[in-house]
Amino acid sequence: MIRRLLSTTMTKKAKAQDFILKTPKGTKDWADKDMIIRESIFNKLSTIFKKHGGVTIDTPVFELREILTGKYGEDSKLIYNLEDQGGELCSLRYDLTVPFARFVACNSVSTIKRYHIAKVYRRDQPAMTKGRMREFYQCDFDIAGNYDLMVPDSEILNILCEGLVGLNITDFKVKLNHRKILDGIFEACGVPESDIRKVSSAIDKLDKLPWEAVKKEILEKGQSEEVADKIWTFVQHSGSIREIIDILRKSDGLDNKSAQEGISEMEVLADYVEAFEIQDYLKFDLSLARGLDYYTGLIYEAVTSASAPPKNASELKSKAAEKKTEKKNKQKKDGAVAGEEAQVEEEEEEDASEYVGVGSIAAGGRYDNLVGMFANNKSIPCVGISFGVERLFSIIKQKVDLSKLNSQHTDVYVMAFGGGEGWNGFLKERMQITNRLWKAGINAEYLYKNKANIRKQFDGAEKSGAKIAVILGKEEFPEGKLRIKVLGQGEENEGELVPVDDLIPVVKKELAKISVDDVTASLNNL
Amino acid sequence: MIRRLLSTTMTKKAKAQDFILKTPKGTKDWADKDMIIRESIFNKLSTIFKKHGGVTIDTPVFELREILTGKYGEDSKLIYNLEDQGGELCSLRYDLTVPFARFVACNSVSTIKRYHIAKVYRRDQPAMTKGRMREFYQCDFDIAGNYDLMVPDSEILNILCEGLVGLNITDFKVKLNHRKILDGIFEACGVPESDIRKVSSAIDKLDKLPWEAVKKEILEKGQSEEVADKIWTFVQHSGSIREIIDILRKSDGLDNKSAQEGISEMEVLADYVEAFEIQDYLKFDLSLARGLDYYTGLIYEAVTSASAPPKNASELKSKAAEKKTEKKNKQKKDGAVAGEEAQVEEEEEEDASEYVGVGSIAAGGRYDNLVGMFANNKSIPCVGISFGVERLFSIIKQKVDLSKLNSQHTDVYVMAFGGGEGWNGFLKERMQITNRLWKAGINAEYLYKNKANIRKQFDGAEKSGAKIAVILGKEEFPEGKLRIKVLGQGEENEGELVPVDDLIPVVKKELAKISVDDVTASLNNL
Repeated sequence: MIRRLLSTTMTKKAKAQDFILKTPKGTKDWADKDMIIRESIFNKLSTIFKKHGGVTIDTPVFELREILTGKYGEDSKLIYNLEDQGGELCSLRYDLTVPFARFVACNSVSTIKRYHIAKVYRRDQPAMTKGRMREFYQCDFDIAGNYDLMVPDSEILNILCEGLVGLNITDFKVKLNHRKILDGIFEACGVPESDIRKVSSAIDKLDKLPWEAVKKEILEKGQSEEVADKIWTFVQHSGSIREIIDILRKSDGLDNKSAQEGISEMEVLADYVEAFEIQDYLKFDLSLARGLDYYTGLIYEAVTSASAPPKNASELKSKAAEKKTEKKNKQKKDGAVAGEEAQVEEEEEEDASEYVGVGSIAAGGRYDNLVGMFANNKSIPCVGISFGVERLFSIIKQKVDLSKLNSQHTDVYVMAFGGGEGWNGFLKERMQITNRLWKAGINAEYLYKNKANIRKQFDGAEKSGAKIAVILGKEEFPEGKLRIKVLGQGEENEGELVPVDDLIPVVKKELAKISVDDVTASLNNL
Repeated sequence: MIRRLLSTTMTKKAKAQDFILKTPKGTKDWADKDMIIRESIFNKLSTIFKKHGGVTIDTPVFELREILTGKYGEDSKLIYNLEDQGGELCSLRYDLTVPFARFVACNSVSTIKRYHIAKVYRRDQPAMTKGRMREFYQCDFDIAGNYDLMVPDSEILNILCEGLVGLNITDFKVKLNHRKILDGIFEACGVPESDIRKVSSAIDKLDKLPWEAVKKEILEKGQSEEVADKIWTFVQHSGSIREIIDILRKSDGLDNKSAQEGISEMEVLADYVEAFEIQDYLKFDLSLARGLDYYTGLIYEAVTSASAPPKNASELKSKAAEKKTEKKNKQKKDGAVAGEEAQVEEEEEEDASEYVGVGSIAAGGRYDNLVGMFANNKSIPCVGISFGVERLFSIIKQKVDLSKLNSQHTDVYVMAFGGGEGWNGFLKERMQITNRLWKAGINAEYLYKNKANIRKQFDGAEKSGAKIAVILGKEEFPEGKLRIKVLGQGEENEGELVPVDDLIPVVKKELAKISVDDVTASLNNL
């Protein structure tokens, strides 16, 4: 047993037992400053979700195994199963999209805008520094319901942009494509329908590989050189939605129904994103394909500078990616079927992970047939976005001045000053005064010692992040007076001596005076 | 497969597949109004935890199996294991206390006040109407660190009272006892040390069984009639802390070290709870023993009228409890060892569950040796409280006017009025106006249709809970004017016609005017 566990990171070896004291591989404890940043991300995003009429739901962390079966293709091997201890067979959820579709089908929901911030589970190879974990958070917003063309889709794009801007990430681009256009291009280039998904997955690698490598893969997948070259004449284009529509309209041979439908839909979208004034964040990129099969319309993913691989690693990356391509070719026989709204490219980085950036930070698309897989009498069209919390976290953490974050929310620290003969430390009195503050809704602490020396009390105050000290002086307090001192203004500031009954109004006044401080400012700037 | 699943509740049978579409047994989806109530409970409690200097942490939902091993005694059979798919063996967490102790030991924490609101997992027999689930929330606050006697303990009791009062539950009592006193009583009555835990677990049933039944169990556990009767002279007492201390001080034969230490500690506590003015909520109850073994000092549990069994079921209850006692006698050979800070009596109700109330709504105690089980070189004393969210939820839900809750947070609904020749529905224009509201931080929605009829837009507004409608009139809007109408004031109110550029200030003014409404008031009264 020791041998098995020794191979993984250990935090501390406890001698009392025969195993290493740690969290399971690919999981971690969240605490302290990381927790503040993470909660701040959640708050920012959920405020935006609510602004758009979103409601939140919570589904069980495990589902009946059959619910997940057949939704993730080859990646099903990454699903965590619960042990068969009698009764139903269950597995931990792999994403939030399949549980959402199950929820919609189960409860006969016809329309909903729901957000869900929760952990999902994948037995993947962890790459913790890049934010790839076995237990990690997804932050999803989805709109289900029969609505007019591209109306919910454009709102999702709006939310995506608003979310990233709200998190102070402004150097991002949202790559867009449309499955119907992509399929239409392949059809026009002579790719047989049965080969479309595998050619599509090769094309999706153009963000990490040069055309030559992708072309090689397409040839290996049984297409002719002529077909491959013809595909290249299309997929090399990216630009504004209207620019690319223009190129597509002028292209020869793209008159098939699928492509024409897709182009018309993108034209409608172009109007709506202009109404929302987000067109400058968007880039229509004909090489975007997204990993999984279940998308039926618009697809998108957001990338930032941190998504890209480091420049000097390009050669290593290229080699690793080729190796990956080979492996993928072997793996991707079936291709995944559904359920992967926003993989955020996890599995795409598997082998090349040491050489590439964090990948896309949010992704999603339209999936009109997933709910129907659970409720075959009624299909509910859906479109959604998933923010990759761990990746956003690693980008944001680099920008934040950690020294200014305090995970405690304490405003006031109650102390006693005294000593010498007959000094009892005023413990009960500190409790009473602190209790008055609590009852007035003020965050307050005191040292849990009978007799607390001054140094330790100031240390406690500093650690707590308190802005004000309320001091019970050995002589002053028995006369009904408290000293109220704003902290961090130097030793010479002795504070204000006030009657005990003025405690609450004076503390409230002082707290109000302390303007939005650095800590709050730092968080607001996240 | 169908046969296996048919035995459990089904929500809907999906014909497309050979299994029932549902959540796993003992789990549920949280949505809509239940979600509002639950979030409101979480907010209330976490605000209080922060007020006391608490910081939150998040641990993985599963732990290495060895971490949980040997912590829950007989109840270990209720632990959910993950399937062995290669690599480490893991299990879902059973409570938040053992993961907390692991966290403290793992990260060499010497002092922390932490709160943790998260799901835990037990393969118990579900009783959903009573709030007993296989996946359920616990809401824990614990203080770890070497502090002066009873100082953190009294603050935990203060938090317990503040939490329940904050949730508008005021008809509660917190039963208190001290493990050292209980052990001292057993010693004084002649119970051999090796029998103390099993006699203790019999005594713990005095809240559900008459003395005769408990006495019978004590005799069955090998004690003499004389010993049992002597125990009764002690454990029948309950009252204020000072009253019971007085009785104990005057009792014959209670001069052993354990009892005397416990009594001294309770004397210190009496002082502190008076400083916090919570003494009236407390009841020193010498029959309180709490299920698990790892408590080392003060123990407590909060009960309300809903905790008690229905009156007319007393006979059934008594029979069922006797049956339970027999079963327990067989089961409880070893007794549990540790980790169960706030079982909230789950397993105690196992057989009698149909006849008893929801049980205790919060519980906890001091456990000074649990961290030391993980880090044997350093033991960190801890004391904590766990609120049973599902039980609080079922009490609170009965009090709330559900009709006044809306899970959406929408304030403004943007509509277009028009029709006839050349009417295009103002979709893009509605998007633009809604976007202006969003950018000003206002929660707003509109109907996702090109041409939306008036009825459907008002239905949408009502469903969204919007307080204000912003109306784009076919004639008015092209003239640069919008109509702003406060909703719910009847048909005759035509609203105010304002220039488009005044949209934000006018909407903000109107929203500010709408005073704290019923919905908010209802939630504030939770």
